[in-house]
Amino acid sequence: MVRRSGRRPGNQDTKTSILEAARRTFADKGYDQASIRAIAGEAGVDPALVHHYFGTKEKLFLAAMNAPMNPAELIPKALAGPREGAGERLIRAALGVWDSPAGSAALAIFRSAMSNEWTARLLREFVVTQILRRAVSELVLDPAEAPLRSSLVATQIAGIMVARYVLRIEPLASADPEIIVAAVGPNVQRFLTDPMLEVFPLN
Amino acid sequence: MVRRSGRRPGNQDTKTSILEAARRTFADKGYDQASIRAIAGEAGVDPALVHHYFGTKEKLFLAAMNAPMNPAELIPKALAGPREGAGERLIRAALGVWDSPAGSAALAIFRSAMSNEWTARLLREFVVTQILRRAVSELVLDPAEAPLRSSLVATQIAGIMVARYVLRIEPLASADPEIIVAAVGPNVQRFLTDPMLEVFPLN
Repeated sequence: MVRRSGRRPGNQDTKTSILEAARRTFADKGYDQASIRAIAGEAGVDPALVHHYFGTKEKLFLAAMNAPMNPAELIPKALAGPREGAGERLIRAALGVWDSPAGSAALAIFRSAMSNEWTARLLREFVVTQILRRAVSELVLDPAEAPLRSSLVATQIAGIMVARYVLRIEPLASADPEIIVAAVGPNVQRFLTDPMLEVFPLN
Repeated sequence: MVRRSGRRPGNQDTKTSILEAARRTFADKGYDQASIRAIAGEAGVDPALVHHYFGTKEKLFLAAMNAPMNPAELIPKALAGPREGAGERLIRAALGVWDSPAGSAALAIFRSAMSNEWTARLLREFVVTQILRRAVSELVLDPAEAPLRSSLVATQIAGIMVARYVLRIEPLASADPEIIVAAVGPNVQRFLTDPMLEVFPLN
């Protein structure tokens, strides 16, 4: 019997199985090592079906994360422009997402990652491969320094999430976003592009 | 029947009831508004018994938080010395606790606060009244600027907790503490004592 094309009852279950397999595989192997083939195998479906439903590995990862925004669009846009304002623009972009309706989804992922080891691994892969790696590439940072610089940037961005949105420490929680951009932006800029000779001594 | 003094079976239950009442009251009213009297009332015991078991309100709060260290000792010690190195000394003190055996208790409180609203309120009260308020007082900051400055410091310290200990982003997660002190200390110093004219315009 040949089925007609169109909406089939099994589709949603299949998509859910693929997303669950993707979450397990990305958390277990890390983003770079997780292949569409491995995820398809874990879900018990053909790799072509994964491509059909989700497109690229990157798009599948964003779907598996329930990511409320696409860093592939957001990061280059945020970092376009002169190098010296990059820190402020990065903080402005983060606050733009978190203060928007999409912010509650981001907050939910963050909270879950704090108490669940597998979600923590997924969030780490998301932050490292989708956000920090893109920022490093846009700013053309020294490859020897980029990993530590970008993980320092992660501390400052994650800390705003905790203090402003989770613990809601005042006056930060109610502060105008531009006050936070002016206060925190230069610190992020230092992590990104300052020589920091005590951290990266000249050879 | 008059009981003999000494260890009674009911003691541990009474202490547990007082601690539970203290957690509810501190989270509900905030540290400043929560009185020993109110906590005793919530636990259904005499206030004198609360003082007998726990001493001061501050000591009761630390017991209720399962705090692995006492900020009343740690913060003045960390901030003693010249004003200009205060940021580095604060980060060194935080890493000293978190990298020690007491760190796992601190991490457990932090994780719990991320997913539980009541624990989040307790942790906020702990951070604001026991850590930040003490730091502000030691450094004699301008009272008009101190709340925002200290909540900015909280973002950077909380962010190290997230990136190094929860998400374990490398190379930060394995970095020597003194590298982190050198990298992050000056940023904390800026939050504490830099004029930051874009944030605090001169009147």
